[in-house]
Amino acid sequence: MNAPQLLQGIPFLAAQPARDGAHLVLFGCPFDSTISFRPGSRFGPQAIRAVSDVLETYCPVLDRDLEDVTFADVGDLPLPPGDSRAALNMVRHLAAEIHAGKQIPAGLGGEHLLTLPLVEAAIEAHPNLVVLQFDAHMDMREDYLGVELSHATVMRKICDIIGPQRILQVGPRSGTRAEFAAANRLGNLKTIRVTGAEIAEWIGDRPVYVTVDLDVLDPSVFPGTGTPEPGGVDFATLQIWIAALAGKQWVGWDVMELSPVYDPTQVSAVVAAKVVRTMILASLARN
Amino acid sequence: MNAPQLLQGIPFLAAQPARDGAHLVLFGCPFDSTISFRPGSRFGPQAIRAVSDVLETYCPVLDRDLEDVTFADVGDLPLPPGDSRAALNMVRHLAAEIHAGKQIPAGLGGEHLLTLPLVEAAIEAHPNLVVLQFDAHMDMREDYLGVELSHATVMRKICDIIGPQRILQVGPRSGTRAEFAAANRLGNLKTIRVTGAEIAEWIGDRPVYVTVDLDVLDPSVFPGTGTPEPGGVDFATLQIWIAALAGKQWVGWDVMELSPVYDPTQVSAVVAAKVVRTMILASLARN
Amino acid sequence: MNAPQLLQGIPFLAAQPARDGAHLVLFGCPFDSTISFRPGSRFGPQAIRAVSDVLETYCPVLDRDLEDVTFADVGDLPLPPGDSRAALNMVRHLAAEIHAGKQIPAGLGGEHLLTLPLVEAAIEAHPNLVVLQFDAHMDMREDYLGVELSHATVMRKICDIIGPQRILQVGPRSGTRAEFAAANRLGNLKTIRVTGAEIAEWIGDRPVYVTVDLDVLDPSVFPGTGTPEPGGVDFATLQIWIAALAGKQWVGWDVMELSPVYDPTQVSAVVAAKVVRTMILASLARN
Amino acid sequence: MNAPQLLQGIPFLAAQPARDGAHLVLFGCPFDSTISFRPGSRFGPQAIRAVSDVLETYCPVLDRDLEDVTFADVGDLPLPPGDSRAALNMVRHLAAEIHAGKQIPAGLGGEHLLTLPLVEAAIEAHPNLVVLQFDAHMDMREDYLGVELSHATVMRKICDIIGPQRILQVGPRSGTRAEFAAANRLGNLKTIRVTGAEIAEWIGDRPVYVTVDLDVLDPSVFPGTGTPEPGGVDFATLQIWIAALAGKQWVGWDVMELSPVYDPTQVSAVVAAKVVRTMILASLARN
Amino acid sequence: MNAPQLLQGIPFLAAQPARDGAHLVLFGCPFDSTISFRPGSRFGPQAIRAVSDVLETYCPVLDRDLEDVTFADVGDLPLPPGDSRAALNMVRHLAAEIHAGKQIPAGLGGEHLLTLPLVEAAIEAHPNLVVLQFDAHMDMREDYLGVELSHATVMRKICDIIGPQRILQVGPRSGTRAEFAAANRLGNLKTIRVTGAEIAEWIGDRPVYVTVDLDVLDPSVFPGTGTPEPGGVDFATLQIWIAALAGKQWVGWDVMELSPVYDPTQVSAVVAAKVVRTMILASLARN
Amino acid sequence: MNAPQLLQGIPFLAAQPARDGAHLVLFGCPFDSTISFRPGSRFGPQAIRAVSDVLETYCPVLDRDLEDVTFADVGDLPLPPGDSRAALNMVRHLAAEIHAGKQIPAGLGGEHLLTLPLVEAAIEAHPNLVVLQFDAHMDMREDYLGVELSHATVMRKICDIIGPQRILQVGPRSGTRAEFAAANRLGNLKTIRVTGAEIAEWIGDRPVYVTVDLDVLDPSVFPGTGTPEPGGVDFATLQIWIAALAGKQWVGWDVMELSPVYDPTQVSAVVAAKVVRTMILASLARN
Repeated sequence: MNAPQLLQGIPFLAAQPARDGAHLVLFGCPFDSTISFRPGSRFGPQAIRAVSDVLETYCPVLDRDLEDVTFADVGDLPLPPGDSRAALNMVRHLAAEIHAGKQIPAGLGGEHLLTLPLVEAAIEAHPNLVVLQFDAHMDMREDYLGVELSHATVMRKICDIIGPQRILQVGPRSGTRAEFAAANRLGNLKTIRVTGAEIAEWIGDRPVYVTVDLDVLDPSVFPGTGTPEPGGVDFATLQIWIAALAGKQWVGWDVMELSPVYDPTQVSAVVAAKVVRTMILASLARN
Repeated sequence: MNAPQLLQGIPFLAAQPARDGAHLVLFGCPFDSTISFRPGSRFGPQAIRAVSDVLETYCPVLDRDLEDVTFADVGDLPLPPGDSRAALNMVRHLAAEIHAGKQIPAGLGGEHLLTLPLVEAAIEAHPNLVVLQFDAHMDMREDYLGVELSHATVMRKICDIIGPQRILQVGPRSGTRAEFAAANRLGNLKTIRVTGAEIAEWIGDRPVYVTVDLDVLDPSVFPGTGTPEPGGVDFATLQIWIAALAGKQWVGWDVMELSPVYDPTQVSAVVAAKVVRTMILASLARN
Repeated sequence: MNAPQLLQGIPFLAAQPARDGAHLVLFGCPFDSTISFRPGSRFGPQAIRAVSDVLETYCPVLDRDLEDVTFADVGDLPLPPGDSRAALNMVRHLAAEIHAGKQIPAGLGGEHLLTLPLVEAAIEAHPNLVVLQFDAHMDMREDYLGVELSHATVMRKICDIIGPQRILQVGPRSGTRAEFAAANRLGNLKTIRVTGAEIAEWIGDRPVYVTVDLDVLDPSVFPGTGTPEPGGVDFATLQIWIAALAGKQWVGWDVMELSPVYDPTQVSAVVAAKVVRTMILASLARN
Repeated sequence: MNAPQLLQGIPFLAAQPARDGAHLVLFGCPFDSTISFRPGSRFGPQAIRAVSDVLETYCPVLDRDLEDVTFADVGDLPLPPGDSRAALNMVRHLAAEIHAGKQIPAGLGGEHLLTLPLVEAAIEAHPNLVVLQFDAHMDMREDYLGVELSHATVMRKICDIIGPQRILQVGPRSGTRAEFAAANRLGNLKTIRVTGAEIAEWIGDRPVYVTVDLDVLDPSVFPGTGTPEPGGVDFATLQIWIAALAGKQWVGWDVMELSPVYDPTQVSAVVAAKVVRTMILASLARN
Repeated sequence: MNAPQLLQGIPFLAAQPARDGAHLVLFGCPFDSTISFRPGSRFGPQAIRAVSDVLETYCPVLDRDLEDVTFADVGDLPLPPGDSRAALNMVRHLAAEIHAGKQIPAGLGGEHLLTLPLVEAAIEAHPNLVVLQFDAHMDMREDYLGVELSHATVMRKICDIIGPQRILQVGPRSGTRAEFAAANRLGNLKTIRVTGAEIAEWIGDRPVYVTVDLDVLDPSVFPGTGTPEPGGVDFATLQIWIAALAGKQWVGWDVMELSPVYDPTQVSAVVAAKVVRTMILASLARN
Repeated sequence: MNAPQLLQGIPFLAAQPARDGAHLVLFGCPFDSTISFRPGSRFGPQAIRAVSDVLETYCPVLDRDLEDVTFADVGDLPLPPGDSRAALNMVRHLAAEIHAGKQIPAGLGGEHLLTLPLVEAAIEAHPNLVVLQFDAHMDMREDYLGVELSHATVMRKICDIIGPQRILQVGPRSGTRAEFAAANRLGNLKTIRVTGAEIAEWIGDRPVYVTVDLDVLDPSVFPGTGTPEPGGVDFATLQIWIAALAGKQWVGWDVMELSPVYDPTQVSAVVAAKVVRTMILASLARN
């Protein structure tokens, strides 16, 4: 497979446009074909970049600045609407390339299904990684209306690869009785009352992949998403959770499920961009 | 009066379409003619049903599932715009019928005035009931611009029937000086800092009618309502309050004042649907 | 009945705030309780005034200027939501007062039902008047869900007073088969292909009351209304129709059914304001 | 393959809920996974039904009434997001069943790709049919980003089956130079200046399948669609085109590409519903 | 310079329209020409007034009523778009006049730059005042894209006059590293965890000017603003902070940066109006 | 003055990112500080580019393709909010540079005031040019609220330089009586009933600068603008007017006043992008 041409636009605030020399490589994954309720997260990556320059480069919570680190934003993959397998291959291929260059891949979604190839590529490079999932939903279904590759099954697919013990789910407040029973048995489910220190302790010094399904936030904070679920976390707490992971060995991350059309105030895009800024700074805290 | 034909649509998540055999009967009350600020709650019942299937049937807070209980959604009453007396009669008539069948009537609004005939029918069946009101407003005016039957007077009308001692108001943060003085004197006013246990204790083992004016929620959580009032409760707290009432003797309830047009994000409808799911499960906890 | 206190705000572009000395008196009728589909026209009068100063005072189509004429905008009547009879009385009372002062009353709606008391007051003062109705709908029903006083019955009520021969309906494209059959029999129905000259000829030198239900406009031009009906007239044509009536003996008029919340672009309000400007200038062309 | 369970809601205005005895069968096809620009047409069928009762049953243009004909609305197919092949199979299967019952299938979209299985089923039953396409776009691409089954390739797929001579395209104003050159060579392209009589003449007495991609309408009239294309037709003209086909031998039809979220005024849904009413009456003019 | 004619409309809830006899004078400052991200706060003053009558006059938090105090709302200054210097002069001139009458000026914005002339006029009258700033941003830049008079530089300009020791900044969560370092050194920066008592203690018995940039609120509570900044304070806390200042010697205040077009729910305007009500009652607690 | 750094993003459909070798150079002018009604056109250039790739490169009206011509899109000028003089200087400077390279400058607005420096630079290079203005407004005021450099005065400024005889105004339907009287005297005012041939004849073989204030379009077609004016032209007619100018000696052009926030349907941005495509192809018809 030839490398597809990425579509480049205004890069994320303070990012360089080319991969060379960067410690972290952002790229957009505009795809939403398996969304079950409200599609539109394909427009997430562009919306995040478009509002990113309303932010400052400095983060007072981490006391770090985007200008202290070196990272690239290489644009969006041209993912084909309606062809999940092709889309997943393209994402996995690019992530693998970035791992090969000893850089951290960071995907901007797009739907949560795209976390699957990102984690697969990360496992290839870091077989003993653990996965930290911030999410309102379990995403542990076997299939959705008969479709196996779906935003609703993504964590089940990952679980099938690395086992439930290496996944920590923070924030789920919606799922089937069976899903909750299983998760409670394993103890890998944390409500929004968990602290950053507890999360950091669970990770320990293992390499970690962090996936943020932005619907972990309460819909009052983040209405611009496909399946809003009332009862979520506020922004400040999510920011503190992420900040608590500065210094860990990050091996990849993603921020998924901004669907800007559902939030005419544009606030959801600003929230997503500020989460991305925090993720960049936390994941590069060792660099 | 002949029974009016109800307008049936996609029922609420997991509801049966016919009354027979159900322990609880949902019905919509699409009426908003006395709204003083922003009308539109007539579209509330339809909006709640339309988004309800984005929810799971299982509620982790109550650890109960809609599939464990038996309830019906019989559709919307054809309430005539502009004729409050006729509308109230139709609502009271249907509620009385449901009481006659030893079922719990549950109204989806629609404006808060419709709580009056619902409570009247409940008193007929359960004369010693108490009324629990979640609301941002007192609704204790004598009249509104000379109109006696109004969303702003509904609790005063109920108070005139059962007296203030049998009403508990949770969440009011807007009213006249006289209204607050009276309520404070009686002690039947609770701010949003009240706990579920305190509410449950006040009810004791008396039969209880629960009315939820959704504007008790903060407008950040629930902007889709006629008279948003800043300073309200968050979703998780409201859910916990309701969950604390599981096991009580519920004799009727309603969820009022979703006005979907004012919230283009659709989140208010999702919030309302999740409140309704919690109310169904809590009110049928004995069944 | 005491005269109610009107709520005064920023007057319509170039209007004086007080009635004395004016040839025409604008007032708002913020009422929408009998609307069958989408309520909200109660906010119409305020929205018209708020955007009116984006217009120039000069109208090139009529080659006349608001500064050449003397007219007042006395604010909004405090119409009680949910009490149609009281509302209609208040409107009729004010209109009659204005007629008594030899001024032309001009109502800004609000729902179309309010045309009934405006026409009743006009008939009192000018028994031989004719009524010209621009509208997408017949409004000739006997009742709506059993309610006799309704926006859907208003022209029937007027018809019952003055007979069908003294009403000309321009633009109706929605109604029952019976309504169309009756109108076609009488010949008082004109499609949007009618010319201003034809309308003017029908009026002749009879005193005329003109009611504009803004939904006569195509919804592409005017989406901000309760019951949009595709297939309507464009703005320029409506303006030309009205301009063709300059010089007639106007004895009252209204512009109804702007419901601004349904048009987030605000264009509907601007359209309504420009219609009002044209009506003012055309109705005062003799002054 | 077992017949899937359709999701039934409030039927389209005046439709019966069950197929038996109907001459025409409406069903919804909520699927939009291959949309290239703005997804969301999955919500089209529900939106059409929800506003349909704001219409009258009588159509003055055709002088016919929905109450004169017998038709059903059997609800929505549960099409799996992200799996085009499965979705197309389900649509074809249901359409074939309806043809088997000598009824006319009528699909409500949903994306335009779904016209492919609808036409395939129609060809099976009526091998000599012709296809009339109202559309802003050619939809004649070979593939879109490598995907062959796409809303952008649907007419090419149909063309591959019946040949270009049996397709008439009305309204296309967007395409590649090659697409326009080919169409002009064949003469099967008509601009929006075509008359209903010309279209009717082209059909002659051949059986006809009519597909309406609603983006044939100008975006001012119909903004609620995935790929709005300025320069389209107005509503009245489209209605007259369809009316001109009353009396033809209709063997199937569809109305596609309403994406309600992009039109907060709800007018696009009303327009779509009125198109559907006209299609029902025109296609059943022989019955 | 002649006094400009103010544009008067419906006054704020319970305000008198004329200055004479009032202890506090509200006026609107509709200007937003230096906004760097999203303009539109020029419509703030009108939006606040338009929704103010949905509030009660009584505030249960302060146990005070607008009807107990005497205040005026004199309308909006006609500030020229694009000419900052002229606009600032007009604001300063009016504020100085109000100070001359021993009244408290209270400005409704409009952009935050307008706080500069308001503070300048207050210093003229009360040279030893201190300034309390509620804000998400420092507003301490030297210039913005080369422009010195900007909403992003306003507090720097004030700081240059009275020195950093007489400014308390509550709520900033966005700024450059240098801005935060400087503020932390001086100790005049408080996060949203500060209490009303701490703020009141800092003021002591010094005369105080209070400026509220409404973006201090979390964007979930207040999305209708030019530069939303996630991680802010909730409404109840802001209200308590302001209430804690009742009894202080207020010498002027403003409420800035409502930009209503970005919040289609209208909730931001209601929030702003309730903040204004609280400010009026707190600032007149001595009267 | 040093050349400012332009902000580059995703270029307009089919444009090259660098100036070298291009016959035409697009650049964005994101500035709206003097707008009198609704600001926001600063977001116009980005919105046009963001939707441009929903268009095809081929234009069937002109039978020409963007891939046949060579043009660049060099990004946006960093114009300082609130400082009109600085902004105008930057625009004039860049346009002059482009003229120096024998390329055609093409500005994307932003507010109409920015046409002034674009025309000034064009006159420097082509002293005998004529100016063709498509616009709903005259823009011939002497000042606006005392501000001389304003979107409402821009054509007056140009008129002061080249005289009224060398300006043709097409589409104005709003202005003062004096403005219309003057224009009618000179004969340089055309209503929307003018033909492309008449416009082409007026130009003759003189070099022409074409300015499109998009509010010349009817607000139903183009609501996303600062001062919508009902009664405008439809899209197809505007496209034909522009197409009629293919082959003329274009020496510069602009497309102004898209303000995307006022059109949540995004259609206005698509319309603007299609106008830009037509302008590119018409102005390069000689190349």
